[in-house]
Amino acid sequence: MSKNKEKRPKIVVIGGGTGVFTVLSGLRKYPVDLTAIISMADDGGSTGVLREEFGILPPGDARRALVALSRADNKMLSDLFNYRFSEGGFKNHVFGNILLTALERLTGSFERALDEAGKILSARGSVIPVTLDNVRLAAVLEDGTVIRGETNIDIPKHDPRLRIKKVYLSPGARANARATEAIRAADLVVIGPGDLFTSIIPNLLVRGIPEAIKKSRAKKAFVVSTMTKAGETGGFRASDYLRELETYLGKGVLDYIVVNSKKPPAKRLAKYKKEGKEIVEPGNLPSHPKAILGNHIRAAGYVRHDPDRLARALIALL
Amino acid sequence: MSKNKEKRPKIVVIGGGTGVFTVLSGLRKYPVDLTAIISMADDGGSTGVLREEFGILPPGDARRALVALSRADNKMLSDLFNYRFSEGGFKNHVFGNILLTALERLTGSFERALDEAGKILSARGSVIPVTLDNVRLAAVLEDGTVIRGETNIDIPKHDPRLRIKKVYLSPGARANARATEAIRAADLVVIGPGDLFTSIIPNLLVRGIPEAIKKSRAKKAFVVSTMTKAGETGGFRASDYLRELETYLGKGVLDYIVVNSKKPPAKRLAKYKKEGKEIVEPGNLPSHPKAILGNHIRAAGYVRHDPDRLARALIALL
Repeated sequence: MSKNKEKRPKIVVIGGGTGVFTVLSGLRKYPVDLTAIISMADDGGSTGVLREEFGILPPGDARRALVALSRADNKMLSDLFNYRFSEGGFKNHVFGNILLTALERLTGSFERALDEAGKILSARGSVIPVTLDNVRLAAVLEDGTVIRGETNIDIPKHDPRLRIKKVYLSPGARANARATEAIRAADLVVIGPGDLFTSIIPNLLVRGIPEAIKKSRAKKAFVVSTMTKAGETGGFRASDYLRELETYLGKGVLDYIVVNSKKPPAKRLAKYKKEGKEIVEPGNLPSHPKAILGNHIRAAGYVRHDPDRLARALIALL
Repeated sequence: MSKNKEKRPKIVVIGGGTGVFTVLSGLRKYPVDLTAIISMADDGGSTGVLREEFGILPPGDARRALVALSRADNKMLSDLFNYRFSEGGFKNHVFGNILLTALERLTGSFERALDEAGKILSARGSVIPVTLDNVRLAAVLEDGTVIRGETNIDIPKHDPRLRIKKVYLSPGARANARATEAIRAADLVVIGPGDLFTSIIPNLLVRGIPEAIKKSRAKKAFVVSTMTKAGETGGFRASDYLRELETYLGKGVLDYIVVNSKKPPAKRLAKYKKEGKEIVEPGNLPSHPKAILGNHIRAAGYVRHDPDRLARALIALL
């Protein structure tokens, strides 16, 4: 088994938020060696409170990644990790976040906490913080306004017509050596899907990460979101996503841009319209990186990536 | 494996508090089928707060039993279950209690929560609540004073010279069917060790439990504490422990009374003296139940049962 593992293709997924869950839960079904590198910029909800009270790195997105990697027969354990208390002193806290907090205290390290939680979940892969530094995300809008905190950018309290001019980490952060090593050894690096400015780019703001991606001999794919997001990527086409990403990653680094080209019926999009969200159209994509177009969304319900369809498209790139 | 399991001797341990941990962690090393029946009267500390806020059965003693049954190679997991938060909103809460609370909410049943937690810990045996009713322990002192709440009896706020005349549950409680079934099917029933009035007798106050013990064809052994406890069993000898237990269990039910007869040097007892605690002497034991005397205590440190010595004495009764 460990011999086979040596030969397995190594896939590194870089992201944050719920997108990481989707891509990992699809990829874990393949005989690949999976590593998730997770943004440490989240500061909202249960995660925000735990950062505040314990000074730990944000557990929420890492927890989602771990659950995505957990064995399918571990349904009760996955449910437990995602259980949100609705009463008492733990109200609004998610159990898995409490578990990671306790493990961080016990082991003295958030990285080791993730490894131990991975053992409990029998996770098929590793979850690695992109940085071990305590960072906060900030955004500058086109009118010069500065917004501090990932949550405040993510759930915009500003005029959603104002574009984000740039995002940065404050203070600056250095890459976790395990993250750069995983990128170096990868056969395929998948960036996204996820919210562009609040889940994906925060990884590229960490010193050493864009450099490691550039240097890696892995194929590099960027998975564009299925839907735009008001106040963050309002009106964006895939070409706009690419332009913004390349601002932080550098031009000519990506090999592939993975874009859903299936247009769901207007009925499925109606509720999104009210929130100012639209389906992401390919737009004028350049000839390089190569566009991987296809039906990558779920057959019904929310217009999100379908884990299996997306995984199939990515595995084909190996 | 399951074929062997059928043939394994079935041992049921009845108790609460820390004594259950000791006896289970010794017995789990033997090829026996272990079940722990746990008192549901605890209402102090982290457990008390969770009972108050969530209306759940008390998790603390059940957690200790689960940890005792967990595989020895699960050190990190045992440490995690017993981890007590010292900061933030979870301050003073024990992680395993939070886990049992979340599992109770997820499964809708405290019993199922214990089973699921047992799976996570790869527990070598089952932990069963003695009752599924929400009970409180009360004690009547010899001057007629009523003390309500296990913690208030356990950490006596009353004059420790006043003896406990009787204890009772309020409201009354019926036995958990799984508990009576385990007692019925047992080859050996071990009562204790643990605090007599606050950890052991509360199990016998549950309707159906003394009856099930009487009816069972199992051998029945009572393990007497190593040290007396001011305000609860001050000045007690083993014969006093037996008399009190038989008040609730009935006379002639026990086959064995297991009493430590090793007297540690005065130096080891000095710190106990200050707290009004003395080594339990056998006293005038009757000819029946048969007294099992021996060195059952640890070689050094606290004057407590040694898990291996106690287990050896109990396994010999099979």
